[in-house]
Amino acid sequence: MAEVAVLGYGTVGSGVVEVIENNRDAISKRCEGLHVKYILDLREFPGDPYEDRVIHEFDPIVNDPEIKIVCETMGGATFAYKYTKACLEAGKSVCTSNKELVEKYGAELSRTAKENNCSYLFEASVGGGIPVIRTINEALTAENIESICGILNGTTNYILHRMETAGLDFDAALKEAQELGYAEKDPTADIEGHDPCRKIAILASLVCGKKVDYEQILMEGIKDLSITDIKYAKAADKSIKLIAKCEFKNGGCYSIVSPRMIDNSNPLAMVKDVFNAVLIHSDMLDDSMYYGRGAGKLATASAVVGDAVECANNIGKTINCGWSEEKAVLSDINELEQSYFVRVKNESIDAFKAAVKTKDRVIEGVAGGETGFFTESMAEGEFKKTIAALNGVVGYIRM
Amino acid sequence: MAEVAVLGYGTVGSGVVEVIENNRDAISKRCEGLHVKYILDLREFPGDPYEDRVIHEFDPIVNDPEIKIVCETMGGATFAYKYTKACLEAGKSVCTSNKELVEKYGAELSRTAKENNCSYLFEASVGGGIPVIRTINEALTAENIESICGILNGTTNYILHRMETAGLDFDAALKEAQELGYAEKDPTADIEGHDPCRKIAILASLVCGKKVDYEQILMEGIKDLSITDIKYAKAADKSIKLIAKCEFKNGGCYSIVSPRMIDNSNPLAMVKDVFNAVLIHSDMLDDSMYYGRGAGKLATASAVVGDAVECANNIGKTINCGWSEEKAVLSDINELEQSYFVRVKNESIDAFKAAVKTKDRVIEGVAGGETGFFTESMAEGEFKKTIAALNGVVGYIRM
Repeated sequence: MAEVAVLGYGTVGSGVVEVIENNRDAISKRCEGLHVKYILDLREFPGDPYEDRVIHEFDPIVNDPEIKIVCETMGGATFAYKYTKACLEAGKSVCTSNKELVEKYGAELSRTAKENNCSYLFEASVGGGIPVIRTINEALTAENIESICGILNGTTNYILHRMETAGLDFDAALKEAQELGYAEKDPTADIEGHDPCRKIAILASLVCGKKVDYEQILMEGIKDLSITDIKYAKAADKSIKLIAKCEFKNGGCYSIVSPRMIDNSNPLAMVKDVFNAVLIHSDMLDDSMYYGRGAGKLATASAVVGDAVECANNIGKTINCGWSEEKAVLSDINELEQSYFVRVKNESIDAFKAAVKTKDRVIEGVAGGETGFFTESMAEGEFKKTIAALNGVVGYIRM
Repeated sequence: MAEVAVLGYGTVGSGVVEVIENNRDAISKRCEGLHVKYILDLREFPGDPYEDRVIHEFDPIVNDPEIKIVCETMGGATFAYKYTKACLEAGKSVCTSNKELVEKYGAELSRTAKENNCSYLFEASVGGGIPVIRTINEALTAENIESICGILNGTTNYILHRMETAGLDFDAALKEAQELGYAEKDPTADIEGHDPCRKIAILASLVCGKKVDYEQILMEGIKDLSITDIKYAKAADKSIKLIAKCEFKNGGCYSIVSPRMIDNSNPLAMVKDVFNAVLIHSDMLDDSMYYGRGAGKLATASAVVGDAVECANNIGKTINCGWSEEKAVLSDINELEQSYFVRVKNESIDAFKAAVKTKDRVIEGVAGGETGFFTESMAEGEFKKTIAALNGVVGYIRM
């Protein structure tokens, strides 16, 4: 039986305790078993079934030689960093769902783990319960990964899903998501794209082996999408999704988070509601996709506990998962080639078609006085420059 | 650098060599590197770039202490069994795509691996390049898996896809699949369901930890499906897929391979062409799905090489993957509860509705003189008994 400490008894932390206790038998089939010895939290939890394990000091945990595995579910990058570092230095493996910490200090903490013959694992930090980190790290090891496209934020996917299926406008769909507890009171991190941006930075770092800084990534959220955009997508038999993308090409990495209008034949198009999915294109395997609940107490906790099981099976050893502290220099996103859907005022069509190569198919009749065009593939920078010089472009969505 | 022997230089075997040689750099990032020293095959390969490594005798491989990893891509269960057993007994890890061997002797060979501090891995035996074995074995370790529904045969999925999208009848779609090389000249193993049946037996064994014999599984293929069935599915906004299913309930396991009419909102409905996917329902994570190419030279080879990388990282150790030799007793499939879509001649509707609880929705006008009904959930045995006693039932499909 491996003794475990849980840092932070909030949503994910209490989920971790619940999963370990409720699924004790299943877990014991896969490792020597897990037992929660300490739960660290500043608060009291009177009446909680695991009240007796709650402590308010970190030192007993880091000083207890029985503790081999620590589940960090505090969030943030201050105390979480300090405690994680101390645990790893004491040879205790740490499993976390804390994407902020992983994105910021993942490289350093992986190195610390290696130096102390323990592991730093973070399956739950991207895609919640979907085993995408493990897939990249342990399964697709014979592959050159060429691109990753992810729906990595359940809140925005829910909002887009409701705009599409119920015809709600953005504000109404956001309000509904908030009422259902899917969106925070301050939904900025979700709707502006910070959350999926951190997650794609983690996946990109894992693939290229260097630290991809999420602040370098071009980020556009969904708050400017209108119900008219959704109607255009429907008319074109396509769907709009917030896609976190990275593309590995010529030794470089392009990364961008933005809404995209994708074909309904794209496997990502069927990802509805709060579900997440990651579509990986690699050279031998071609397309593969991993789909599931990207958030939620138990799904996220399950991934943390899955990591803890792997740690229990590798006590005294390091499971390699991470990247070097060297900073990756992202390729200039202006060079990224893609197609665009562009809404153009009817009086400006001739000027637009003279400036941009478009496909024959057009979408008319969705909004008065304008027409929707699909461009041929062109570089982001060239497209933006061309569009800026034109009048009559109502808006565009990448494809 | 770990020295590797490849047994069998057919489609998958030559793919294994190709993946190891072409993706040498990617592989070296994930382990000490792999090098193909021997290729065992009875045939000569004049002009082949790896001609110099081809040998016709097994003994030099099993007797070479440099060989740590063997990729068995011969197929069949006679020589493949003998050679695999000998390699494991010599402490060499074996990675395979051979579902027949895994289904038949997986338990014994896993035990032999354990006794000799090496590993027997078979990711490629189910779902080709989709990492479903690893997901069950290493990722979903905190979960009680409650059901698995898989599209595990690319040939039949292609046939159903073409019947659905091009309106071909079964024979024409099969002929097309044969012309494209997706179906064998003798397509029995695919269209009668033997192939997915073996694969679901492997997944079921992995989940329940005991040997599930594929011959115990109720198996129905797709050869009796007509274009009218497909039209009914379309009219009902559903799709027909050949689903290999196992359900774990009350300590038992139900397993069945048969065509099913599934909702288009089911993530499996979007699996087109020759793609495969596995939908797993588990208690903490809820639904998760794993999608990709279930066959093909490079996709399958990539999974074999991914296993070889894991073996290279664990020389002298056993990666636990398998089940005990104890035979699982499958639960009586007649107890499995599910709904059915039933085509009934119009003159028999009253008798049918008196005998079977149906939903209000009906599908009319697809075929003359009959109506399609959806039943409430009922046990397989009860349904079959009821139907057998009625006249006027044209056919049924499980849901």
